[in-house]
Amino acid sequence: MKKLIGDPGAVVADALVGIEAALPQVRVDHENRVVLRATPKDEGKVALVSGGGSGHEPLHGGFVGFGMLDAACAGEVFTSPTPDQVLAATTAVDRGAGVLHIVKNYTGDVMNFEMAAELAEGASVASVLVHDDVAVEDSTYTAGRRGVGLTVFLEKIAGAAAEEGRPLDEVVRVAEKVSAQGRSMGVALTSGTVPAAGRPTFDLPDDEMEVGVGIHGEPGRHREKLAPAPRIAEMLVEPVLADLPSGGEPVIAMLNGMGGSPLLELYLMYGEVAKLLEKAGVSVARTLVGNYITSLDMAGCSLTLLRADDELLRLWDAPVETPGLRWGR
Amino acid sequence: MKKLIGDPGAVVADALVGIEAALPQVRVDHENRVVLRATPKDEGKVALVSGGGSGHEPLHGGFVGFGMLDAACAGEVFTSPTPDQVLAATTAVDRGAGVLHIVKNYTGDVMNFEMAAELAEGASVASVLVHDDVAVEDSTYTAGRRGVGLTVFLEKIAGAAAEEGRPLDEVVRVAEKVSAQGRSMGVALTSGTVPAAGRPTFDLPDDEMEVGVGIHGEPGRHREKLAPAPRIAEMLVEPVLADLPSGGEPVIAMLNGMGGSPLLELYLMYGEVAKLLEKAGVSVARTLVGNYITSLDMAGCSLTLLRADDELLRLWDAPVETPGLRWGR
Repeated sequence: MKKLIGDPGAVVADALVGIEAALPQVRVDHENRVVLRATPKDEGKVALVSGGGSGHEPLHGGFVGFGMLDAACAGEVFTSPTPDQVLAATTAVDRGAGVLHIVKNYTGDVMNFEMAAELAEGASVASVLVHDDVAVEDSTYTAGRRGVGLTVFLEKIAGAAAEEGRPLDEVVRVAEKVSAQGRSMGVALTSGTVPAAGRPTFDLPDDEMEVGVGIHGEPGRHREKLAPAPRIAEMLVEPVLADLPSGGEPVIAMLNGMGGSPLLELYLMYGEVAKLLEKAGVSVARTLVGNYITSLDMAGCSLTLLRADDELLRLWDAPVETPGLRWGR
Repeated sequence: MKKLIGDPGAVVADALVGIEAALPQVRVDHENRVVLRATPKDEGKVALVSGGGSGHEPLHGGFVGFGMLDAACAGEVFTSPTPDQVLAATTAVDRGAGVLHIVKNYTGDVMNFEMAAELAEGASVASVLVHDDVAVEDSTYTAGRRGVGLTVFLEKIAGAAAEEGRPLDEVVRVAEKVSAQGRSMGVALTSGTVPAAGRPTFDLPDDEMEVGVGIHGEPGRHREKLAPAPRIAEMLVEPVLADLPSGGEPVIAMLNGMGGSPLLELYLMYGEVAKLLEKAGVSVARTLVGNYITSLDMAGCSLTLLRADDELLRLWDAPVETPGLRWGR
């Protein structure tokens, strides 16, 4: 896949220049590659830091702003941010009430966020792990389940709790609840292309798809012939529902694009997913359809469901004002 | 490019099912394939209708809502909506103060919107043409310049004027001002794939790009070897500035993705564009970066600049609440 880039080794740095030019509501620490709110939140509120490899935009930098993150650390494409980056972000956003690290479950991310937490001597740091991908236990870069789409929900909901002024242990409790109550599954029709590599991350024959793919192109459960949308919807809905905590609460649903599939197809896919959820007796309280956690230009999509009680729904509905997610304010 | 679809002949109808399921703020007239606001605007306000071929999402259906469109007619992929569709939309949204048709300059669209306006006997209908693409005069489906990215600006700004309760002639005046003051230019790195066709719309060698491409893959000015982002930015900025009405006013800038290029690359491209605009002494008052008017899964981007006086800026900043564009309310 052809790229809109200059120096392939400087893609992330160059993109951060564009982010700063385009978005007055954020500022960029170019030295540490951290995206921060232009206006820090009030003193005495818990701050949220996330980050990870680049290439999943709008995650995480696009979720910096009122009601979500205070800072996002941008690693190289598909590469964990360094402990120094996370430390710089943590120090910059600490408002005296503690900092929550939101960490997707990849070995490098887990290690580097942990190291940063240890180094952040002045700040009270807690951490929550996102590990929602039901496709596989253990994978290329992960022990246990991978962290994928639920990250968007967790950043939104924990962000709302922090914005309300809840103390760190309360924000952690809400974040852990989201982490426990949500599950995801994805499918790839094509591989994305890392700019510095210049060729697709994995080979996939023209008539096949990868069922259960990871957001870095990690292998999923199996490959099979490209199927029509109604069948693909079954491949996403069934394993997610099988692993989702049961209960009478409705769900928040996200049909997420991997970056290379048009919005027209994502809405079409959601139509198929909605039919299956209705058939399964699952009530959908809120819906997101679009590109929220991508894998560069991978064609494909993922489904995330979060079993949401009244508390989570109320926090979901709270105002949010970020480049990637915005409502109610 | 592989597709998330069921029946290739039913893609638009199937996507409309998903749109209705996902978006409580709109309702869908499935018979006429029209997306409407769930809550109609107040009686006595001018209504806005747009539409065109599908495959450019979020345009137009994603811009239905408070502060923008009242209805969007979804044609087949890259095919004008029929007069019947436009008539149904016009009749449905008329609140007694007249209806503005926002028409991109393609022969079929122009003809069918005109026919619908003639058939809409009860309603007072005005029309504004978007023809902002500086790449070529006359093209595959167009006499005169093609209508592309400026459509987003026009729908937003005329929508704000209508929401304020301005009379039809005033909304038309504002819309014509936008149409006169904005210009666009695009570049394709790959062709998009129409679902029913199943293969790329045009052939483009692996190391070439189409400079000045249209949103249906129409030929542009020329082809050349794929260039680095700073050079591509020049190819967009120079012709747009050469044709943009001069004046001391700042611009509203949109770096739009064609659907298949990751957000990371779009921000990177905007960084290059911003440098060139600064060098040219053009002040950027507002910026949009993302996928707003796409060409299915085409990789590439376009630049739109609108010379915006205080009136246009104020209307731009007015609250908007649509699936595709949302702020300030």
